[in-house]
Amino acid sequence: MTDQPTLHDVYRAHARIKPLIVETPLLASAELTDKTGAQSVHLKLECLQNTGAFKVRGAANKILSLSNQEKQKGVITFSTGNHGKAVAYVAERTGIQATVCLSEHVPAYRAQTIRRLGATVAVKGRSQDEAEKHYQELARVHGFTPVVPFDDPSIIAGQGTLALEILRELPAAQVLLIPLSGGGLLAGMAMVAKSINPGIHIVGLSIERSPAMVASLKASKPVQVEEKSSIADSLLGGIGFDNHYTLPMVERYVDEHLLISEEEIKAGMFYLFDSHRTIVEGAAAVGVGAMLSGRIDLAGTRVVTVITGGSVESAAYLSIINEQLKRTSHS
Amino acid sequence: MTDQPTLHDVYRAHARIKPLIVETPLLASAELTDKTGAQSVHLKLECLQNTGAFKVRGAANKILSLSNQEKQKGVITFSTGNHGKAVAYVAERTGIQATVCLSEHVPAYRAQTIRRLGATVAVKGRSQDEAEKHYQELARVHGFTPVVPFDDPSIIAGQGTLALEILRELPAAQVLLIPLSGGGLLAGMAMVAKSINPGIHIVGLSIERSPAMVASLKASKPVQVEEKSSIADSLLGGIGFDNHYTLPMVERYVDEHLLISEEEIKAGMFYLFDSHRTIVEGAAAVGVGAMLSGRIDLAGTRVVTVITGGSVESAAYLSIINEQLKRTSHS
Repeated sequence: MTDQPTLHDVYRAHARIKPLIVETPLLASAELTDKTGAQSVHLKLECLQNTGAFKVRGAANKILSLSNQEKQKGVITFSTGNHGKAVAYVAERTGIQATVCLSEHVPAYRAQTIRRLGATVAVKGRSQDEAEKHYQELARVHGFTPVVPFDDPSIIAGQGTLALEILRELPAAQVLLIPLSGGGLLAGMAMVAKSINPGIHIVGLSIERSPAMVASLKASKPVQVEEKSSIADSLLGGIGFDNHYTLPMVERYVDEHLLISEEEIKAGMFYLFDSHRTIVEGAAAVGVGAMLSGRIDLAGTRVVTVITGGSVESAAYLSIINEQLKRTSHS
Repeated sequence: MTDQPTLHDVYRAHARIKPLIVETPLLASAELTDKTGAQSVHLKLECLQNTGAFKVRGAANKILSLSNQEKQKGVITFSTGNHGKAVAYVAERTGIQATVCLSEHVPAYRAQTIRRLGATVAVKGRSQDEAEKHYQELARVHGFTPVVPFDDPSIIAGQGTLALEILRELPAAQVLLIPLSGGGLLAGMAMVAKSINPGIHIVGLSIERSPAMVASLKASKPVQVEEKSSIADSLLGGIGFDNHYTLPMVERYVDEHLLISEEEIKAGMFYLFDSHRTIVEGAAAVGVGAMLSGRIDLAGTRVVTVITGGSVESAAYLSIINEQLKRTSHS
């Protein structure tokens, strides 16, 4: 087993992935500063990242770190969302063959998006589990290198580059609100932030409907939770029974956990639309949802959250925003 | 009368305004490249500019160029939209007093936005003309320096900084599609682009409902046109009967003019929502609307357009997007 990634690994990751990523803007929000009583509130706009989500950072670091032999054989992953897009994008840009496994249940437009990015899409199986089996089989038969979504030191180091950019621009940051599901983003960012400034306060934001990491921390081992659907679908899913990295890192570096409700997520999405003209997927709105809820005391502090992505289907997005607009104009 | 601004003036403007502006991203659009048959299509995202529109560039250059005496006395403008916000923002950041004159017809929320940015709002008169008279009177009585919206060398040079950023990042650009109303943006950008690369092709995009500049070019003098309402309200308005700068500069530097319809603007707004997760006001969508219309031959060229701003009221925006979504899902 490799060691947990270090601050130095993240510095190296940042240099490595630079040609493939955008250094996204850190937007100061006067409105959220007013609302929260914070000294200042800042939004790191990863919805403007290549492929529309931060996931390209980890995927780029992993794929660029492979040996020449591994690169020649190609990579494989299974994902319905942002990670699959990120792997396809990075592989195409670096001339590496990528295969993305999907189940038959994944909507056709998602397969289309991944194909357009240049990857081979392998559709098989009636569930995610069956698609995963197919993925393992293809990896074994063809010798493809698996690119897992979060529990990998190179992926974690790649996501950690976000904290490097934030602290370089705003070294006075005191509170980081970070979305949490599998924990790759949180592990990487929290490790970097605490290594640079041990006094920084790290808040992990899980969704109420899929708090696998929080349950695993309580049990001190990976546990599965009953999973309901959520509008923050990128934050659904477990942490893996074979978890090696993200669980211990989240345990070590996170100061506070908060579970975010569906209503809070919707409120965050609408706020970002209405006040910042920014379209985000549900998962990307948990930070703003948490701030608006008033359930974290942010008075007088410098707060940063990551707006993780904008992968949301137009009609679904509009129905949420229309509903929220109606609600605010009635109140 | 001062001379027309030069490339050197724009270089000086860029250095001067740097602390007050964002160097906004230039987004490559694979989708629009496919649709148009261009070699590449790029969008300069000024909707991510401070105050949500490019206007802050010109206002910052003008205000920072004033003498100390003028700064002490304060500035004044009249505007209902992005220029008023830009003047308020720059004045507040630089410790200068600003007054923005509005007519009684301007919606209260707009006055509120300008007040929040720190300016004094003077509401008087039942029309824009009456508000303008009030503005001239206040300027005379208090010795405020007028900051006009477009026909001023410092304003033109400030807007021209956009072309500097674009050509630094994409020196191979061959076609620039630039929104046109009073002509400050177009005059500044076209002068810079032609000074650096005389072979670049400049297209001015006016709205069908208010083509004052195109009519003035035909008449070789400023003329007024009958003005209807438009969803691209930032592009409404004349060029001023006392025009000194933008009319001759547009005449000199622009290669081609195109009038954009309301339907084309809506299609552009929806496209930016649906394919680029970007919320824009009508005026900012004329470039994409022109590309989608197929009325310009872009085959094989490197094309850039400016997404000028995102100042649009939430309910009005949603009603356009909802209507367009319905239309595309029926077709």
